[in-house]
Amino acid sequence: MAIQIPRGTQDILPGEVEKWQLIEETAKVICRKYQYKEIRTPIFEHTELFQRGVGDTTDIVQKEMYTFDDRGGRNLTLRPEGTASVVRSFAENKMYGYANQPVKLYYLGPMFRYERPQAGRFRQFVQFGIEALGSNDPAIDAEVISIAMEMYQELGLKKLRLVVNSLGDTESRIAHRESLINHFSPRIEEFCEDCQKRLVKNPLRILDCKKDSNHELMKNAPSVLDYLNDESKKYFDKVKQHLDGMGIDYVIDPTLVRGLDYYNHTAFEIMSEAEGFGAITTLCGGGRYNGLVENMGGPNTPGIGFALSIERLLSALTAEGIDITKTEEIDCYIIALGDESRDYSVTLLQELRRAGYSAERDYMDRKMKAQFKAAERLGAKYTVIIGENELETGTVVVKRLEDGEQRELSLDHFIEKFNSLNR
Amino acid sequence: MAIQIPRGTQDILPGEVEKWQLIEETAKVICRKYQYKEIRTPIFEHTELFQRGVGDTTDIVQKEMYTFDDRGGRNLTLRPEGTASVVRSFAENKMYGYANQPVKLYYLGPMFRYERPQAGRFRQFVQFGIEALGSNDPAIDAEVISIAMEMYQELGLKKLRLVVNSLGDTESRIAHRESLINHFSPRIEEFCEDCQKRLVKNPLRILDCKKDSNHELMKNAPSVLDYLNDESKKYFDKVKQHLDGMGIDYVIDPTLVRGLDYYNHTAFEIMSEAEGFGAITTLCGGGRYNGLVENMGGPNTPGIGFALSIERLLSALTAEGIDITKTEEIDCYIIALGDESRDYSVTLLQELRRAGYSAERDYMDRKMKAQFKAAERLGAKYTVIIGENELETGTVVVKRLEDGEQRELSLDHFIEKFNSLNR
Repeated sequence: MAIQIPRGTQDILPGEVEKWQLIEETAKVICRKYQYKEIRTPIFEHTELFQRGVGDTTDIVQKEMYTFDDRGGRNLTLRPEGTASVVRSFAENKMYGYANQPVKLYYLGPMFRYERPQAGRFRQFVQFGIEALGSNDPAIDAEVISIAMEMYQELGLKKLRLVVNSLGDTESRIAHRESLINHFSPRIEEFCEDCQKRLVKNPLRILDCKKDSNHELMKNAPSVLDYLNDESKKYFDKVKQHLDGMGIDYVIDPTLVRGLDYYNHTAFEIMSEAEGFGAITTLCGGGRYNGLVENMGGPNTPGIGFALSIERLLSALTAEGIDITKTEEIDCYIIALGDESRDYSVTLLQELRRAGYSAERDYMDRKMKAQFKAAERLGAKYTVIIGENELETGTVVVKRLEDGEQRELSLDHFIEKFNSLNR
Repeated sequence: MAIQIPRGTQDILPGEVEKWQLIEETAKVICRKYQYKEIRTPIFEHTELFQRGVGDTTDIVQKEMYTFDDRGGRNLTLRPEGTASVVRSFAENKMYGYANQPVKLYYLGPMFRYERPQAGRFRQFVQFGIEALGSNDPAIDAEVISIAMEMYQELGLKKLRLVVNSLGDTESRIAHRESLINHFSPRIEEFCEDCQKRLVKNPLRILDCKKDSNHELMKNAPSVLDYLNDESKKYFDKVKQHLDGMGIDYVIDPTLVRGLDYYNHTAFEIMSEAEGFGAITTLCGGGRYNGLVENMGGPNTPGIGFALSIERLLSALTAEGIDITKTEEIDCYIIALGDESRDYSVTLLQELRRAGYSAERDYMDRKMKAQFKAAERLGAKYTVIIGENELETGTVVVKRLEDGEQRELSLDHFIEKFNSLNR
């Protein structure tokens, strides 16, 4: 029996892969404009990296990681996200010493989470993400948000909702944390077990709870924005001012939080508002993490970034009815009749390809009519017909499929003549 | 303490990553000319796939695979090579029913083998490979070889050695196998333990043995070429004829074998002959595998392909002293003085990038001189200088760094004016 693909993964086949190529090309062009450079980190890392960098208490680390021992006894994990690896590499390669600061990086590649597969959610999925490390300028927060928005808009998405919030600096977060504890403590037994644990460990994450989202205490929970100190408020004001100056629309949502301690100041999400997009509406999440690099053993370094999944981006395109499929065509298809012509066509084909043309011939021993059909199917601009007579006279018939125009070309300096047709 | 990268893996950083991008772009352009389409299969597969597709008795399967159980109890393996996955996908997605035959595919991505790391050899490495499935035309064998050669030559490699052989069809292989058994049997106890096992299981692999390579029986071992039946001989002659017609140089080496049963007819390798390249001289290996698809549970389908490692390609470039580093430059760097100008520069930067320019500003609160230095370091074509006065008058100074030429441009319709400078 044939072996099948592992559950929750997919093959990306010709016909579909061109969309991925276009999306990746779009990401690269945008990153070039904004001067983010690609970084490639390994598919797996030491498990401890994600325990520290993603957070021991998160669902990702507790329930969703692909963790295993290698043959040397190292405990490794397939990366569930990209930031921890980039920060590891930043510290290990001492990028904080680079002349160009901030260090602006992007990554694009597969990530792995053992989740229940559903529409648009896979166990292996591809993330595009950026990280800007080393700057505390609110303008870089706006830049990072702008890149995420441009990525979607460039591909044609219109029904987008950008949500922005600030978590403030450490002082503001501590003040907010205390107010949350005071708010939930008296009635915490009405909340789920997870929330009861969160109250002490990380009360901010109670606001993220899906089970208790309708509890009345959730509605009037203290807003983080009311606890920003002056500096944090000023920072957030600048970010908003820059977004306004760049002409980027957004809404403020004080309930948008990120549970981990090293997140601070700017947090944002981009959602699809397309009808029929389904339950998962968040396309992209990002924010500032000034504590992370130090937490991972590097020097104290501010940072901000985002990550977005290509699979969800594709779902959003479908939901808005946008088709980014490219129809490819080839320059030339050689039709050869008889053994000698077939042999000769191999050489001619090679000459065309060496000259830079996309070209094809038959490899299935097809009859002439079937060869013509293959040429049409491949969207050939020209066919070159080589029959027995043609070889004797040293000429071939070149036919433009668009209008059927035919001309005889000598095989002597054929490429030059074919070039002139294409000018 | 900081966590480090897993042993045998590497980060590919800016400065180095541009080489990888260029190599990948080269592969894509060549594949487009030859009409091979990209396929992306998962990073891991069911372990059984590689046991069947790569071969239970190979070193790869026995000693080098990253194998683990997922949280659902599936036994999975990080792919050690690409062909098994492509063939799995070909069968699972019924590509044998596609109108365009043969199905011509390429892949490009990380593979994983637990080997002892050494120069140019990593536990995670990147392979570019192609597979042509469905055709038995010797012209496609020549085409596949041509793509591999073009890949290297396009990047500037000159010291290449293409070695070609034929293993013949099943009948020829059986005849050769018997002659090998007769040849080695009388003195097999002089060979290593592995070879003694191979004698019965797969005597062809004795020829591959590194331990016994100097045994006198190896030198006069029966050549596979002497056992090709007429059809196999004719097939090989055609392949050679096509290579000649395409102007591709090669040498025949009857000791070039592939141990697995489903390999037949054409086998080839490309080596680097550059001095100082080191012990590993094989850059690329490929061949015909008409038995593989059926062996993997699909219909009887001929196939041929190759795989090459990007890491070794890079080593070969270094060995020949070829530098493919691209020096990038940016279109514009904005130098802003004073708070108001700095704020305004965010908007202007965004306008430049929206218009398609790669542009940058300072995010480190640097003084003017340091901003100028940053512009030079990034290879900026132009600087735009915004001072306090400039904002009041609504003009900025645009300086071309190449020759120092300066001009004042009004901020009104600035992009149009900047466009005209770049025409």
